[in-house]
Parts: sequence; C-alpha cells; structure tokens
Amino acid sequence: MDLIADARARDADDPLAPRRARYLIPEGVIYLDGNSLGPASHAALAALEVAARQEWAEGLIRSWNAAGWFEMPLALGDRIGRLVGAGAGSVACCDTISVNLYKVLHACLALRPDRRVILAEATSFPTDLYIAEGVCAAAGARLVLAEGPVEAALTDEVAAMLVNHVDYRSGALRDMAGLSAAAQAAGALAVWDLSHSAGALEVALDRDGADFAVGCTYKYLNGGPGAPGFVYAAARHHGSIRQPVSGWWGHARPFAFEPGYAAAEGVKAFLAGTQPVLSMRTLAGALEDWEGVGMAEVRAKSRAMTEAFIGWVEAVCPELELGSPREAAARGSQVSFRHANGYEIMQALIARGVIGDFRAPDVLRFGFAPLYLSFEEVARAVLALREVLASGEWREARFAERGAVT
Amino acid sequence: MDLIADARARDADDPLAPRRARYLIPEGVIYLDGNSLGPASHAALAALEVAARQEWAEGLIRSWNAAGWFEMPLALGDRIGRLVGAGAGSVACCDTISVNLYKVLHACLALRPDRRVILAEATSFPTDLYIAEGVCAAAGARLVLAEGPVEAALTDEVAAMLVNHVDYRSGALRDMAGLSAAAQAAGALAVWDLSHSAGALEVALDRDGADFAVGCTYKYLNGGPGAPGFVYAAARHHGSIRQPVSGWWGHARPFAFEPGYAAAEGVKAFLAGTQPVLSMRTLAGALEDWEGVGMAEVRAKSRAMTEAFIGWVEAVCPELELGSPREAAARGSQVSFRHANGYEIMQALIARGVIGDFRAPDVLRFGFAPLYLSFEEVARAVLALREVLASGEWREARFAERGAVT
Repeated sequence: MDLIADARARDADDPLAPRRARYLIPEGVIYLDGNSLGPASHAALAALEVAARQEWAEGLIRSWNAAGWFEMPLALGDRIGRLVGAGAGSVACCDTISVNLYKVLHACLALRPDRRVILAEATSFPTDLYIAEGVCAAAGARLVLAEGPVEAALTDEVAAMLVNHVDYRSGALRDMAGLSAAAQAAGALAVWDLSHSAGALEVALDRDGADFAVGCTYKYLNGGPGAPGFVYAAARHHGSIRQPVSGWWGHARPFAFEPGYAAAEGVKAFLAGTQPVLSMRTLAGALEDWEGVGMAEVRAKSRAMTEAFIGWVEAVCPELELGSPREAAARGSQVSFRHANGYEIMQALIARGVIGDFRAPDVLRFGFAPLYLSFEEVARAVLALREVLASGEWREARFAERGAVT
Repeated sequence: MDLIADARARDADDPLAPRRARYLIPEGVIYLDGNSLGPASHAALAALEVAARQEWAEGLIRSWNAAGWFEMPLALGDRIGRLVGAGAGSVACCDTISVNLYKVLHACLALRPDRRVILAEATSFPTDLYIAEGVCAAAGARLVLAEGPVEAALTDEVAAMLVNHVDYRSGALRDMAGLSAAAQAAGALAVWDLSHSAGALEVALDRDGADFAVGCTYKYLNGGPGAPGFVYAAARHHGSIRQPVSGWWGHARPFAFEPGYAAAEGVKAFLAGTQPVLSMRTLAGALEDWEGVGMAEVRAKSRAMTEAFIGWVEAVCPELELGSPREAAARGSQVSFRHANGYEIMQALIARGVIGDFRAPDVLRFGFAPLYLSFEEVARAVLALREVLASGEWREARFAERGAVT
C-alpha cells in the first residue's frame, strides 16, 4: 500500500485544502493536537495586533465604546453560534468553560427547584465532574455518575443531565437529539459540553433540543491558548436564567451603577466580570477563518481523514489497538489507539515532529482538524509512527520521563 | 500662579520621571484614566508578541510546559504580591475580579459555617454587591449593606466584611489594619477589594491583617484591557480554602484525571479553569515595568500630584466642588470633582485630549498614575479644564449625548 500516493490523490480532491495557507504551522511539524490547542492563523494574529497596538495603546479607555469591546461577548457568541447550530442571541462568549459550566448547572437547579440531582457520565472530562461536584456542594444537590448509558440513570430527581458531546479519550460521539429528548422526557434539562465537537463536526443545538451547552474556543476553533469559553441557552430559557455569579456585565442595566442586581434578559444573564479583551480579539480573528466554511464539508473531510488514518495505522502498526469507535458516524474528529507504552511512544513521535497527545493510562490520541491538515501529512504521521514502533526508539530513556502534560 | 512653571520644577525633582519612556501614551493625550484602564508599555507589547508568535504559533501545545504557561497564575501572583505586601505563595492571578470575589466570599462562608451574613459598604463598587448578592443566594446567606461606617454594623452573624480599599467614586482610602482588626475582633473575616489601590499606593496585606483580597490588573498595574484578576489568601488560611468553582487547575493533582475533586493546598485552591494565556503574558510584560519601583516612592508622587491637582483646580476652576477627601493621607490616587453638568464637562475635556471619566450622578473623576504622568501634564489638564469651563464649550449639543461609558 502506497500511503503517500493514496493521500495525495485525496488531497487533490479536497475542497478545504486551500484554507491551509491561512494557518502558521511550524516547519517540520505535523500537528495532530488541534483538539487540545489549535494553531495560530494570520487573521488571528492580525486581529490581536490591531487590538493591542491600535485599540489599547492608541484608543485606551475610549475603545470600550469606539472599538466595540462591550459588544464582544454577544457578537462573538453569534459567530460561534453559527458553527454550532444556535440562533442569534443564544450564545455568549465569556470566562472559562469551567466557570460557564458552573453557571449553567446552577441555572438548571434553579429551573428545577424540586430536583436535586445532577447526572453525568463517569467518563466525562474530569474537570466537568469537579465543577458539578462544586455546584452540588454549593446548592445542596447530589452528583450521580452513570457508569453505563447515561440515559438509563435518569430519574425524577434529576435536574440536569450533563453529557460530553464527544468523549475526550475515545472520541465517541453522543446522540444529541436522542439524549436531549430522553432527558426532557424524564423532566430533566440536557446540558452539553461541546469542547471536542465545536468546530469539528455538525453541531445542531437548536434543532437537536439541547437546553444548555458550554464549549471552548481554543481547540478546533483555534482561538488561541486559553481563549474564552462560550455558553448556550435555548431560546425557551431566555427569560428565566438565574445564576449566582452575578457580575456587572450580566446586569440588565450595567451602567446604571444600581446597588441591587437585576439579571439581563437572555443569554446575557450568564455574563459576569470584565473579559480579557486581547484574548477575545484574537478569537475574533480566528473566527474570520471560518467564514464561508460549511460544517458539512468539515465533517466530511474529518470522517474521511479519521477513516484513512485508522486504515493506514492498522495496516502498518499492528501493535496498536484502536480505542475509538470504528464506525465514522459514531466518532468525533479524533482517533485513539492504545498501547501499554503509549506515553513513551507519543514522546518519541513528538521528537519526530508529529504532535499528538497522550491520555492516561495508555491512550495515544490524535486530532484531525480539517481546515489545516492534509491527507499527506496524516500519511506521513502514520509512517513516522511505524518507524517509532519498528525501530524501538521509544525505549530510549529520554522518552520515559513523564512531564506534566504533552 | 504660573502652573506650568510650578509643574516643571516638580518634574525636575521627580525620581520616577524616566519611567514615562516605557509607556506608549498617544500624541495629544493627557491620560488621567489609568485608574480605569492603564496604558500599554513596550514591555507589555513585547511580551504579547513573544507569546503569540513564538509560544503559540511556533510552540503550540508544547508551550504549556516549555514556556511555563502552567506556572503563570502563581508566578504572576508572586510578582503582584510584592506590590501589595503579600508573601510568596499568597496570591494567584486568574479569572476576573468578579469570579474571584465569588470564590472568596464562598470560602469565607465555609470558614464561618455558623455565620450567614456578608457585610459590605453600601457605597461599594456595584459589581461587588451583585456578586455578594449571588453568593448569598447560592449559600443561603444574607447581604447587609452598611450606610455608615462599615465596622459599626459588625455583629456575631457576620462571616465576612467586604471593604473597597479605595472608594471608586470619591477616592477615599480605608484603614486596612484598623478595619481588619475590627472585623476579626467580631469573629468575622476581612475581605479587601484592591481594584483602586493595587499599583497606586502602599498596600500591606500581610502586615495589616487582611484575610482575603481580590484585585484587578488592568487599572494601575497596566496589564491590558480585561487582564486577569488576582486573589489573595493570608497564609493562616492556606490549609482550609474551600470554594465551589472547583475546576481542574485548582485540583491537588490536576494531571491525574481523577473523577473526584481534591482541592490543592494554599491559594492554588482558588484556580478553576484554563486561563487566557495571551492576556496573562501581556500582564507579565507589564509587571516588568514595576521592577525596581518602590511603592513608597509611587505613593509619595501620587500624593504630591493629587495635592497639586486639587490646589490648581481650586485656584482656577471655582465652579467645581471637591468630591474627595482633602487630606492626602485619606485619599487613594484619584481625585473627584463635582458639577451638575459633570457629564458634558468631561466630554468636552476628552475632546481636548484630556481623558478622565465620569461617574453618575455628577462626578468628574481623575486618576493619577505616577509611573507615566508628569506634573506638567497635570497642570495642562487643569488649564484645559479651565478653558472648558470658561468658554462654556461643554454646552454644545455634541457633548450632551450619553454613551455607554467614558
């Protein structure tokens, strides 16, 4: 099997291929970790430059009005909304995903005052569970972790069911429409964590009946390191969002300097404090790269790419065991392979310029971002992986030391 | 009285004068609003450039370790700590001041489980009260607003007394040592909002017995628009901080991906989600400008400058009424003057390039940042103010329209 020839034929047919030129991918790097931190684009860096040197340095305090800084959380929210199937006015961009999830789960408990359980999958991204635990402690509720299918654990005590749309470890994709309906049939609210799906596949929050959602913008949306999170509320909840992190920006009249809090209408009620303008402006630039992109074509390329990757790895690296769903429709835009020495193998691969990441205990995780990856790069990554395994170079001592994160 | 000659003589004696060259103050602007948003410095913009083009664009995910992104909240916290009299390991830089105050007030209620009142001054910056209201609603506590001296309202129900170190409107400076002791004598915890004092005067959190504090870095610390907030915990509380916004970064073992939350030791327990790296790096650059600066000399210049400003304004603008304490020791680094047409007067002044701000209902507010302001600028601002008043130009219709903020 000639992987490179196969890949080049696919690249020649790829309608998204010209978009690669928008991104700054370092020389010698094949970047399969955009699901952790997306790369910089020319548009993102240009927007940052304008924000820093014109809006801040020249405009100073005047830029809050003149440069539209005040409008950013909802303006960016609308642009993100288009990518996740949310109508205008349903998404706000602010704070971190942790803080946003905290606010959303409180809002859910307030909407279901007679129910005191938050239900989540035991395999959720851990920080989601930490936050849910914190909300429960603060609100006198109880966190229930489902070991099996989460919908099977729905009871009439459940106020909110929290689901990770794509599992961070396996890449398994959950059925948003089906699970939202199941939650609602049980009287609960459906809360979605879109960290690993926003920008990677077709998300349809409005259509699929989500109640609330949170997501992050530094993964597939390429907003920059630690770029602000976002929060979605279905239109039916816009009149009734109550959450306790009630800062000035979520006030109905933020400039009246009233002593008492009055929540703004709509998703704006999730805003709290002053947002990091430079990070938000960078995200605004990054979102320009999504203009004219249809999520259907992103998803089509992602499916083709993950499928090709699995096929190629299984053909040339029989030592590895697939850790993701085999069926493309059941998968997000990442693929996991398992190996007892996954950590060392990933370190050796990174040393060759192929950047993926490792998740304990044994998962080699590869993310596929259709806007800037070519099939040829994916094929070259597979060949590098084969070399790492065949040469045994991962056994070298320098790859064994565990750092904080990769 | 020759204001300019007087001012130039003072500038000639100013040991901080050479620091002005570090900052980018736009041509034609006299900037008396650094208490709302500090200006950009060459060091801040250079640090941002490195963070964006090297750490992000080149380093990608590797920069979390290689560039020390993980260390930022506590490393920046220590550098801020030096400026506010807090020992190493007592300050974390993260989130917004609103979110940090939310966490701190919860931590106070957890430390005083038998007390359910949060006491604050009725004149507090409004968002502090909104947040306190949210915490009370979430935790089953009650917010009491003191109309007179806050310490007079201490009772055995008060868990935390929240005080703004410098009043945002009048600039009045509160006695940290005395009020902290009074709170503690009543069994309460003393919580300080340093928004208008950090970087403006000598703050001595450890020495003056504060229990907790929050502050912002985009005012006198010049960290950039919406730069992250900071949070302080006295060393005696480091083993017992419990707050419900319990995200992964505040976990004792953040990379173990454990399903249950375990709070980190010390002030780190206040961390929650992933922080905006570009904004934090900009702040790191801005803090370089504080190296070698003693807060005593900052305070000395600030006192001299506010005193000169009050004297000059009262000499040439008798229409205005002083809205700040007359005694320098009772004042922060800002001065307020009152006039029924304050809004229009400030707009006309801004049109002349002198940027201060307006606070309802009638306050013209001027901030004096010793690192980049000269006495001559202050004198020229006073002359411009006299022109605005003498000419009556503020009566022009174009100055009457109220924008969102100035």
